[in-house]
Amino acid sequence: MQKKYLMTPGPTPVPSEVLLAQARPMIHHRTPDFNAVVRDCVEGLKYVFQTEESDVLIFASSGTGAMESAVANCFRLGDKVLVASNGKFGQRMAQIAQAYGLDVLVLEYGWQQVVAPADIAHFLEENPDTRGVIVTQSETSSGVLNDVQAVGAIVAGYPDCVLIVDSITGIGAVDCKTDEWGLDVVMTGSQKGLMLPPGLAALSVSPKAWKAYGRSNLPKFYFDWKKYKSNLEKDTTPFTPAVSLMMGLAEALRLMREEGIENIIARHARLAEAMRTGCEALGLELFAPREGRGNAVTPVWVPEGIDGKKLVSLLKNKHGVTIAGGQDDYAGRIFRVGHLGYFGDFDIVTTLVALEMTLKELGYDFEPGTGVKAAEAVLMG
Amino acid sequence: MQKKYLMTPGPTPVPSEVLLAQARPMIHHRTPDFNAVVRDCVEGLKYVFQTEESDVLIFASSGTGAMESAVANCFRLGDKVLVASNGKFGQRMAQIAQAYGLDVLVLEYGWQQVVAPADIAHFLEENPDTRGVIVTQSETSSGVLNDVQAVGAIVAGYPDCVLIVDSITGIGAVDCKTDEWGLDVVMTGSQKGLMLPPGLAALSVSPKAWKAYGRSNLPKFYFDWKKYKSNLEKDTTPFTPAVSLMMGLAEALRLMREEGIENIIARHARLAEAMRTGCEALGLELFAPREGRGNAVTPVWVPEGIDGKKLVSLLKNKHGVTIAGGQDDYAGRIFRVGHLGYFGDFDIVTTLVALEMTLKELGYDFEPGTGVKAAEAVLMG
Repeated sequence: MQKKYLMTPGPTPVPSEVLLAQARPMIHHRTPDFNAVVRDCVEGLKYVFQTEESDVLIFASSGTGAMESAVANCFRLGDKVLVASNGKFGQRMAQIAQAYGLDVLVLEYGWQQVVAPADIAHFLEENPDTRGVIVTQSETSSGVLNDVQAVGAIVAGYPDCVLIVDSITGIGAVDCKTDEWGLDVVMTGSQKGLMLPPGLAALSVSPKAWKAYGRSNLPKFYFDWKKYKSNLEKDTTPFTPAVSLMMGLAEALRLMREEGIENIIARHARLAEAMRTGCEALGLELFAPREGRGNAVTPVWVPEGIDGKKLVSLLKNKHGVTIAGGQDDYAGRIFRVGHLGYFGDFDIVTTLVALEMTLKELGYDFEPGTGVKAAEAVLMG
Repeated sequence: MQKKYLMTPGPTPVPSEVLLAQARPMIHHRTPDFNAVVRDCVEGLKYVFQTEESDVLIFASSGTGAMESAVANCFRLGDKVLVASNGKFGQRMAQIAQAYGLDVLVLEYGWQQVVAPADIAHFLEENPDTRGVIVTQSETSSGVLNDVQAVGAIVAGYPDCVLIVDSITGIGAVDCKTDEWGLDVVMTGSQKGLMLPPGLAALSVSPKAWKAYGRSNLPKFYFDWKKYKSNLEKDTTPFTPAVSLMMGLAEALRLMREEGIENIIARHARLAEAMRTGCEALGLELFAPREGRGNAVTPVWVPEGIDGKKLVSLLKNKHGVTIAGGQDDYAGRIFRVGHLGYFGDFDIVTTLVALEMTLKELGYDFEPGTGVKAAEAVLMG
């Protein structure tokens, strides 16, 4: 037997309470028993999304389904939208908007750059007919955190322009004040900060986004927001929901409310800081720039002369620790450690020690124990 | 404690082996471990769908997502399609096709009527430019079984017309020979004959349907078939899959292969016959016409003078047996007993006895024991 540790930015580890909640015997979804589950999920999600003004809808889909729904529900064919992209998931939002025939303008940044809110302000001044701004809060591919609060303040000045925020690895790891920051559409996936298996996506819709819905004319059915809203008023769903995952979600949200959203975010900040400090103490170079580092995932450059894919596979096969490699251009060149959701101090300790052992095996030159020692100092506060 | 029995046509009961398989610790989806799960699921589904020629794709969504994908992937804007509808789910297919801007012609039947293949043949003769025929094999709302084999033989004569079959409550309950009958697109949901919680949908795509895909121009991204196919070639998925449900699916399909698809269908036919015979012995009238009765669900008229909603709620609250009521126009007027998936002889016995007790309580005049006796005779063969 090899003990296993899942240190990826999604799927993330699921607490046993949640695993077992979603293994309960099946119940029918058109019953008062399940209405109560829907109610618990919606109330808990509003708490986690920090919103009272927006509706929160739940889809049986992965996060990409929610991303597509944002495009299909907010716009008319040919609408001008701005996508600020600095990673794989920003690119995906642009691809979806293109697939639906929008007039898509992409503010393209490098994966190690932070989106500059001033660029968005400048674009909107020159293009006041823009109907939507789309931005990723926390880029899973790069670990970069974009300042969606600043973007919210800018877009608030344009009453016909909605702000769509992909917070799939943001919610539950970094602060995301949906109402206070003026975020019209915010989305997350179940297999991230919500500590569930994948298969559910949740999305908030502000009154301004509902106004956009009113004029949208793109084809939609399964992801048609209005169908979800009118059913939520009766604590139910328009189509058969993912019953087992919803039962797990209610349990996960109970755990999250018990800890408190501020404490959850503070815990993530602490763990991320410990991981970064540990890596730097080993002489490794962090991928994300100092001015934009999120709490969900720590991407690190593979040291020169070391095979990045071998590093990831040794960690998994020899030590039982699954981390993620780089994506697209950065495959084999960076590795990514996830610490998003059900994580504590000793997951960071375990990963750093396993990383040290692996680096040693691969011939990297350093003093073993250096990384974990530095992390321990951070964790002791 | 009240022991619970789920006798609905979806969600259906989930075997404990499957509940526990999907409660295993989370694994990452971009790993050889999960590639093996994908492979098992696809091979098992091809067996259950009785296809070697078609690809089988798996979505993280409910069945409606697969229905929408069939429309978005097979057609161009304005294409003429024929929907043969004799129930709630036939209507839904027409609504989806309309939402996507197709030229939709509906052959509308009553909920107690069977779709007449001759009507489809006649329509195609007069409209040889029709690009698709859409039909429901097993109507969950009415229990009616349509003869998709006969429809397949007709549509085979039109090389530019695809046949789309909603077999959401068909697969695993009634025979559905995808290849042999020439069914181009066949779909099912996880919470039906596959004995899983809801949250997954599976769909087969024939070479003819891939040809239709090639000319389709409707917007799609999350449900874009090509993305799934190209990833399946590497035993993976384009977007994060519903990992826990897929682990459950692999286990459910293992159980199904152990029993054998012919035996599964024969078991369903036997149980359905026992349920129908039991109800008729109680003097109740079956809803579906003799010439088109499926094996998945038995809808029954509520006897005159009895409150149908009260019957359903008494069965659930007093006896622990959850059945479904009627939908739309038939709410309160019929009740529906599901026996699709993980069911055996004694589930039928339990339901009939609970039904007798409930009917007695509601003042219906009959000899208790009559229904279960008649069913027992059928079950003894």
